[in-house]
Amino acid sequence: MFEQLGLIGCGLMGGSFALALKRAGLVKRVVGYSKSPSTTERARQMGVIDVEAPSALLAVSGADIVLLAVPVAATEATLKAIRHLVNNDMLIMDVGSTKRDVVDSARRVLRDHIGSFVPCHPITGKEVSGVEHADPDLYTGKTVILTPIERTQLAQLRRAAEVWEALQCHVVQMSPDAHDAAFAAVSHLPHLIAFALMNGITGQASGKEFLSLAGPGFRDFTRIAASDPKMWRDVLLANRQELLEQSGQFQRALQAMEAMITNNNGEALEESIASASRARAGWRMGFPKK
Amino acid sequence: MFEQLGLIGCGLMGGSFALALKRAGLVKRVVGYSKSPSTTERARQMGVIDVEAPSALLAVSGADIVLLAVPVAATEATLKAIRHLVNNDMLIMDVGSTKRDVVDSARRVLRDHIGSFVPCHPITGKEVSGVEHADPDLYTGKTVILTPIERTQLAQLRRAAEVWEALQCHVVQMSPDAHDAAFAAVSHLPHLIAFALMNGITGQASGKEFLSLAGPGFRDFTRIAASDPKMWRDVLLANRQELLEQSGQFQRALQAMEAMITNNNGEALEESIASASRARAGWRMGFPKK
Repeated sequence: MFEQLGLIGCGLMGGSFALALKRAGLVKRVVGYSKSPSTTERARQMGVIDVEAPSALLAVSGADIVLLAVPVAATEATLKAIRHLVNNDMLIMDVGSTKRDVVDSARRVLRDHIGSFVPCHPITGKEVSGVEHADPDLYTGKTVILTPIERTQLAQLRRAAEVWEALQCHVVQMSPDAHDAAFAAVSHLPHLIAFALMNGITGQASGKEFLSLAGPGFRDFTRIAASDPKMWRDVLLANRQELLEQSGQFQRALQAMEAMITNNNGEALEESIASASRARAGWRMGFPKK
Repeated sequence: MFEQLGLIGCGLMGGSFALALKRAGLVKRVVGYSKSPSTTERARQMGVIDVEAPSALLAVSGADIVLLAVPVAATEATLKAIRHLVNNDMLIMDVGSTKRDVVDSARRVLRDHIGSFVPCHPITGKEVSGVEHADPDLYTGKTVILTPIERTQLAQLRRAAEVWEALQCHVVQMSPDAHDAAFAAVSHLPHLIAFALMNGITGQASGKEFLSLAGPGFRDFTRIAASDPKMWRDVLLANRQELLEQSGQFQRALQAMEAMITNNNGEALEESIASASRARAGWRMGFPKK
């Protein structure tokens, strides 16, 4: 049970965390701060937070648990804004989609207090953003990846795992680097592709007509293309090395299939599709072992 | 009301059509044929068809409505097998995902009776195939595109539209060429990309671990990668010219975004994502005007 959650960033991810923590009876009071005062105010009106803080630092004042729910590129500035109130008893977590850059920022800024910081990535989201869409069930049943470093306090790592487990999450632990490589492949690249596909179509004279004919396959394939531009700009830039590597792997696979099509090589094409189809049909959204 | 449906191909698409037609009370008897005798038998056991025909020709014998529900590459051979019983009063339709190649085959084979043939593409499907998954609601509420040619009998075109409308479909009419260009962009290319993405990941040493971490975005994005290999081999080959053109458009859009990432051009990247995000957020699966 925590006394006070200091919530920095009262959007979809942060707001949903506050609602879930309150519903689980894990926190007495939520003090929230968002860069935009109107967001903070709306969060309070909606009951997502109890008290509006006029700065990130004041949101942390008196908190025993802090959640950073800001775009990953804002992590370093946010940590700088709060570092004077960070202490070793405070549990600090983030929810960023990339981890190496977040850990690097935390090392640079928090220094002696970095042991309080547990980097987290909950595998959840919506294609809409904003506190209006905050949902106490956003995290329920989802996987949360913790990427501690050698200086992370074991006690804080345990507390972080307990908080997420109390929200019915499946907690997985891995290194920041392994995390970033995996998510470049299964999340960041699919987003980049979905954005590029939409832009490739709308850039054509008949693009509008094409879109009017699209069906359920297209709907599901492009759902992630509606994601938040600022958040994804930051993620794609923060993980650019792994992302470009994965994009290269993908383009080589695509061009190999294009060659089969150009050469009318039905046998190779069928085998290539069958291999993809088997892999996808056998895949289940899973909860890897710790 | 039809006396007898001759169903050639008792799989997901054909079986679902037979079930829907029966439920709507539009047909008295369904005579079915599939290349695999065990499929035909299963279709009869399931009540999808009433009578098993030992050949495509015998499935057509006595039919006043015929549905070809075979892989598009099998269209020409199927039409050859039935052409001796085709007459001008019979309504013949197909459900193929490409239309120019189907129309070309019909022109070559049906000649004087081509007026009976109404090329159709219902925008529906499942990522599983086979008569076991036949579903009388597969077509309900979906768009069906009719691509008549200059020699199509107007009376047969009207009957075809009436059949689909009786199954609560939204009927749209366009040329075979316009159809193939649009579906290269919004269906065939997304399938090709989804296959290539799966192959790009599984081809890597850590591919299995990557997949174990994938979440709901990946699930929806890759759903179509589990599609039937034979069917999609045929579609991708049949529409190769338009598909490769669309794949080129896509790769140019992807490489433009990669350049923004490489050059750390956050402003251009955000604008590019925002443009894709707006286009997708504003899109609704729609029913274009006739």
